[in-house]
Amino acid sequence: MTDYRTLRVALLGAGAVGSQVADLLLKHGDELADRAGAKLELAGIAVRNLDSKRDADLPRELFTTDAETLIVGSDIVIELMGGIEPARTQVLHAIASGADVVTANKALLATHGSEVFEAADQVGAEVYYEAAAAGAIPIIRPLRDSLAGDRVVRIMGIVNGTTNYILDRMDTEGADFADVLAQAQALGYAEADPTADVEGYDAAQKAAILASLAFHTTVPLDAVHREGITSVDAAMIESARHAGYVIKLLAVCERLTAADGSESISVRVYPALVDRSHPLASVHGANNAVFVQAEAAGDLMFYGAGAGGVQTASAVLGDVVSAARRHIAGGVGVGESTRANLPAVPIGHVITRYQITLEVDDKPGVLATVAGILSEGRVSIATVEQTVIEADENTQTSGSARLVIGTHKAREQDLSETVERLAASGVVERVVSVLRVEGN
Amino acid sequence: MTDYRTLRVALLGAGAVGSQVADLLLKHGDELADRAGAKLELAGIAVRNLDSKRDADLPRELFTTDAETLIVGSDIVIELMGGIEPARTQVLHAIASGADVVTANKALLATHGSEVFEAADQVGAEVYYEAAAAGAIPIIRPLRDSLAGDRVVRIMGIVNGTTNYILDRMDTEGADFADVLAQAQALGYAEADPTADVEGYDAAQKAAILASLAFHTTVPLDAVHREGITSVDAAMIESARHAGYVIKLLAVCERLTAADGSESISVRVYPALVDRSHPLASVHGANNAVFVQAEAAGDLMFYGAGAGGVQTASAVLGDVVSAARRHIAGGVGVGESTRANLPAVPIGHVITRYQITLEVDDKPGVLATVAGILSEGRVSIATVEQTVIEADENTQTSGSARLVIGTHKAREQDLSETVERLAASGVVERVVSVLRVEGN
Repeated sequence: MTDYRTLRVALLGAGAVGSQVADLLLKHGDELADRAGAKLELAGIAVRNLDSKRDADLPRELFTTDAETLIVGSDIVIELMGGIEPARTQVLHAIASGADVVTANKALLATHGSEVFEAADQVGAEVYYEAAAAGAIPIIRPLRDSLAGDRVVRIMGIVNGTTNYILDRMDTEGADFADVLAQAQALGYAEADPTADVEGYDAAQKAAILASLAFHTTVPLDAVHREGITSVDAAMIESARHAGYVIKLLAVCERLTAADGSESISVRVYPALVDRSHPLASVHGANNAVFVQAEAAGDLMFYGAGAGGVQTASAVLGDVVSAARRHIAGGVGVGESTRANLPAVPIGHVITRYQITLEVDDKPGVLATVAGILSEGRVSIATVEQTVIEADENTQTSGSARLVIGTHKAREQDLSETVERLAASGVVERVVSVLRVEGN
Repeated sequence: MTDYRTLRVALLGAGAVGSQVADLLLKHGDELADRAGAKLELAGIAVRNLDSKRDADLPRELFTTDAETLIVGSDIVIELMGGIEPARTQVLHAIASGADVVTANKALLATHGSEVFEAADQVGAEVYYEAAAAGAIPIIRPLRDSLAGDRVVRIMGIVNGTTNYILDRMDTEGADFADVLAQAQALGYAEADPTADVEGYDAAQKAAILASLAFHTTVPLDAVHREGITSVDAAMIESARHAGYVIKLLAVCERLTAADGSESISVRVYPALVDRSHPLASVHGANNAVFVQAEAAGDLMFYGAGAGGVQTASAVLGDVVSAARRHIAGGVGVGESTRANLPAVPIGHVITRYQITLEVDDKPGVLATVAGILSEGRVSIATVEQTVIEADENTQTSGSARLVIGTHKAREQDLSETVERLAASGVVERVVSVLRVEGN
């Protein structure tokens, strides 16, 4: 047995992830010591309520309600409380006390990331957060280190397991959103209050973290455009399938270069159409995947479980080992490189392809009117498919037709103004859906 | 402009990858300095022949034939010569001179990895090799760092682009091996001498590197069982398709635990049947993917371009930035963790599922004979499909039948002895193919 130096590890929070982290730290202590080059001593677990039920059988004497005292003297503080406060205060306290911090707290990093990273920079501490962006999928190190010599131009991520599960079931079973959500809640795949997932808040936090890292810039959460999946219905899924697409809730992070060479970014979360041959289309169930396009490396994809206590614990422990190695090796924090200050463009300036589904009067001249409005609005048509919905056989008058229009790339603002004009044109009975198409 | 310290970078080799690395270092100097926290000065490029044609337009004055002198005084040495010598000597020279080394040389690491890593450990230098295992796909950092707190139990990798391209075309077009190889050679996807690729030597080197890293042990190249794809023909591909499989050349790295808790590993490269619903089945063309199963993290997959000059250059530059950051941060090398000394089991002890395809006499009792031989050999049958190949209509005697047998998990040695007994049984006309089935 090698004689290792001991590092003191404090754990804040013992929920689904925290319990597993504590359990693995205790169970695999020797192996982790070999990996880290240091013995990792779990000094204590700070919780709000000592009597709560835990997912793992942990020694009662480790628990405390006094996070503040536990933190002092710790080499590594693992923050798995979630939420902004008291997590923020405790993380800053840990940094000030000279500890490195490992956190899976996406809400904290997406809203107070700059404050946390700056505090760490000032004292030469490190903040590790592999588990905050895509659960167990190693994406932080690839973006921060492996691609550090390359230029990331685009990320498309399926970063929320609950919504992918729902959309995947809707796609497989032709079921409606509300039914699948109810099932997902019954199975524990969705929370009783599913807002954070289905309205895209969780994905938006992760998008902000991924974009900050990929573009070496600071992306505030309010710069992320966000739409959820509550408006996606069985008919939209069916129509997507018919056109060779699948609907996925995507976090899209894009680097944009203007004609004068100036750069900006766009970060947005919305349900989008993805071609069924795209690698992201085959991400099923509650899995996550992050598709990265870089100038030199080309297309990369990282796939795995996006959530789950033990899966996320794996990412947390990887960070703990990294922090321990750094403690042993000495040296100041490697930190993040200089940060650019890239502006985020408003959603209206974003350029993508669209699929517009309309119900129109089935009579001569309608297509010409629709095409004219699109053309005036600088929206160029790539594909059109018209199908008759109903024709009144008794009166022989024409009924309604469904018009599915695939556009070339268009500016979001032009597109939405054009759709408004279509709705008011008199020939369009109903705008069934307007969906972005992502991936080439 | 931040005032950065300058680090001296020496490049050895200016082939497809080396030229791109030099080009990107020169083109993106400012951005790389921001990433690395240091100015990366390309001090020179050592080549064998000053007059060779290069893939990028590089300043002539950078070139030298004197690698030895170039290395002295360099902070980071990038070795992209390939092959064992003089790469080995120069890498050891670089380490002895106090430089960190970045290399994409899988042959060197698979055969002399221990020597190189030990030399680096002794002087506190680091050896970076992200580009050596799967081209541009970031797999080294995820295995070394992100999964350091987890236990990898299995890796299945498509790590050779040429063979994946060939097998994918055979699958799509129903073409035969020789025809597709000739096409691939004409298109530059395969070398004039394709032995290293089609016989699995390249994949075996990468498998040794991946297994060493994943299991924190030393895997010598001769512990890797290796079979190539030259025996795969159109009929095998068609038969695989019929059974819902696709044939892929897989590098399989497995951690095995005996009943007494002792551990060993198995590392092997061979063409195997993969279920079409498995994520590896949808890796097309010359792409690579590494599928990793870890105890806590579950299933992960890393996908991207496995080769190509500029793609591989991305991985090399990521390593250069990491090396530079470490130089700036100070501290001794973080190095690898303590290494276990896990024995590699011989191929005969490996346990997998199999698909056995036989041509048998189409007469009563044959199936019973075949089933009896399998049962005696401790090979348990999971599925059987028998189809008639030909029946002689004039004589009304029975002709031949094709028997496709899917087995449950069996020991390789039991299986191969059983197949020999089948071949000699008198009822089997021909053993058409024996393929392992990988992935659950």
